[in-house]
Amino acid sequence: MANKGGLEGAVVADITTSFIDGAVGKLIYSGYTIEDLAENATFEEVLFLLYNVRLPNKSEFEDLRATIAKSATVPEPVLAMMKSLPTETPAMAVLRTAVSMLSAYDDDAENLTDKEVAKAKAFRLTGQITTICAAWMRIVKGEEPVAPREDLTLAENFVYMMSSEEPDATASAAVNVYLVLLAEHGMNASTFTTRVVTATGADMHSAIVGGIGALKGPSHGGANSEAMKMFLEIGEVDNVEPWFDKNIKNGDRRIMGIGHRVYKANDPRAGILKKHAEALANSSGNSKWFEIAVKLEEAARADQYFIDRNLYPNVDYYSAIVLYTLDLDIDMFTPLFAMSRIAGWSAHVIAQMGGRLIRPKANYVGPEGLSWTPIGER
Amino acid sequence: MANKGGLEGAVVADITTSFIDGAVGKLIYSGYTIEDLAENATFEEVLFLLYNVRLPNKSEFEDLRATIAKSATVPEPVLAMMKSLPTETPAMAVLRTAVSMLSAYDDDAENLTDKEVAKAKAFRLTGQITTICAAWMRIVKGEEPVAPREDLTLAENFVYMMSSEEPDATASAAVNVYLVLLAEHGMNASTFTTRVVTATGADMHSAIVGGIGALKGPSHGGANSEAMKMFLEIGEVDNVEPWFDKNIKNGDRRIMGIGHRVYKANDPRAGILKKHAEALANSSGNSKWFEIAVKLEEAARADQYFIDRNLYPNVDYYSAIVLYTLDLDIDMFTPLFAMSRIAGWSAHVIAQMGGRLIRPKANYVGPEGLSWTPIGER
Repeated sequence: MANKGGLEGAVVADITTSFIDGAVGKLIYSGYTIEDLAENATFEEVLFLLYNVRLPNKSEFEDLRATIAKSATVPEPVLAMMKSLPTETPAMAVLRTAVSMLSAYDDDAENLTDKEVAKAKAFRLTGQITTICAAWMRIVKGEEPVAPREDLTLAENFVYMMSSEEPDATASAAVNVYLVLLAEHGMNASTFTTRVVTATGADMHSAIVGGIGALKGPSHGGANSEAMKMFLEIGEVDNVEPWFDKNIKNGDRRIMGIGHRVYKANDPRAGILKKHAEALANSSGNSKWFEIAVKLEEAARADQYFIDRNLYPNVDYYSAIVLYTLDLDIDMFTPLFAMSRIAGWSAHVIAQMGGRLIRPKANYVGPEGLSWTPIGER
Repeated sequence: MANKGGLEGAVVADITTSFIDGAVGKLIYSGYTIEDLAENATFEEVLFLLYNVRLPNKSEFEDLRATIAKSATVPEPVLAMMKSLPTETPAMAVLRTAVSMLSAYDDDAENLTDKEVAKAKAFRLTGQITTICAAWMRIVKGEEPVAPREDLTLAENFVYMMSSEEPDATASAAVNVYLVLLAEHGMNASTFTTRVVTATGADMHSAIVGGIGALKGPSHGGANSEAMKMFLEIGEVDNVEPWFDKNIKNGDRRIMGIGHRVYKANDPRAGILKKHAEALANSSGNSKWFEIAVKLEEAARADQYFIDRNLYPNVDYYSAIVLYTLDLDIDMFTPLFAMSRIAGWSAHVIAQMGGRLIRPKANYVGPEGLSWTPIGER
């Protein structure tokens, strides 16, 4: 084969949304460092930035916030479909199905060419994905979904719709930071999927549904819930070392949430989330999971295998601790990733609209020159 | 940018399913020419061939046929969701949503690693997609869906479930040929999508749902219905020349269903479908649409623009005529493509399972080194 099959190094598009320098662990969105944005930005400001390559002024921000909040309502038949599902359905399968079904109730679903229409549609989807996530959390518990409020930011609305209570400021801030950190990340597999789908001229819902499917995979967004399952399996701080020796040192050497295709140094998002995880651990009084994560990171970073291969915790590793401390079901971790990444996905989709069909090649290694034999003679 | 963005020439995988020589208009599936298969094979034999790189014997064929027929039932909640949709919902959006929802009722949906389990799941999906297509055609007309029969081939079952009558042999044969011709085609955009999704470790339903979304695009599977809309717009044989002069010669030069990324000669599938379209035109007594298609092809092939660029009718062009003569709604043309292509998609998905994450690169062209400004100062 001409390459390793992972399309490493093949350039698919010029973009203005994000730049990653994996060798030094640097990430910027449209000119701003991820550290700066995590410290200061709301998710809506990031969304505006990714679309417009500049930050919004006060009235632009308020317009965008209100637009998203007002169009975040999910049509009743979609909620009815969700209620009809077995409650053990993986939340990512629910989200994938619900977003696909949303297109039937979006008047502009089949407008395939107008980029302004596409932006408005993306804002609706951004709000609706948050509403679907919160609604599913309630449906699973046998509770009625709560409709979004028009006066809140997306992060606040999520916390509100989960609890149906006035959104807690600390929880909203933690959700907001998470949304900011995960919003965009170059030509990752789910974003690339949305581009491949869009390049056929297909509609935005098809593209986003494709992205959700790709994100679901344990080698992509699914890694955050897999990481948490691993922390739960370890269970106690004292068990980190024996667990590491048994499962990693003498096992298959893979730690969920450690290692990244692009970063060969610290993933800057992991560092930011580690600080938030520590703060949440201290304020909640339950620091066990954070301590397990830190100790496992230390064990890995002291191991020659991980040192030689530049394997560091990625964004999924410490986000698992943050999301768990927010009392989210593990099954909801990857949907929250989607709640954020819709920003990057939709910006890429709109940039890709009208672009060239993405169609690589396969290398045929099968038989040639065979002649048909009737079935009775085989 | 380092390339044209379409990943032309980038090799993603070694495959045994199909080989295309676009320069001479040649297509083979696992060693057999498409002409040979169209003449002789059932869709089930093709499916077996793509999976096993050999044709089935009689009992293997009967096993596969029965397996698909027996597992083609669509769970009641999925049919209920379909009935809840507005009847004007595009059939591809219905199919995408229904297949996504099917995962909630598939006990093996979250088995991500076992290839034998994946095969059985693919056979279920193959039957279920056919059932969904037939069911939606009936739901749109206000009729109750018909359950699949265990004694029929997939092509026969589709014709049966459309009409609820004993399947007509001519119609079943035409559907079968269509299914054989469209079953597999190298690293096309929808198949590539299923591979990108699978390479994240995601489940088969996510991959197939992604493929359906990509196929929906007018530059991919959506072209068959777009071609038929064009023939209907032309309306009369005498209108072909004035329509061509106005819309193509002096227009944007694009004819839906003419031209292909890979074929720079006759698409062999188009030639086979042309013969079937002619036979159906003669036997049905309505040859108008076939004649329009032939005359438009002649007009294009006499035009220097099309000659210079090696633009020939592709598979979508004459399949539009065949499907229209079968009395299918135009909206169902692309779902029928999916009904066939599930064969190739699932074979590629299973081959990709456990493979390397597919993640190309983006080229950042945005600003750098910006510093945060508080919102009041922007």
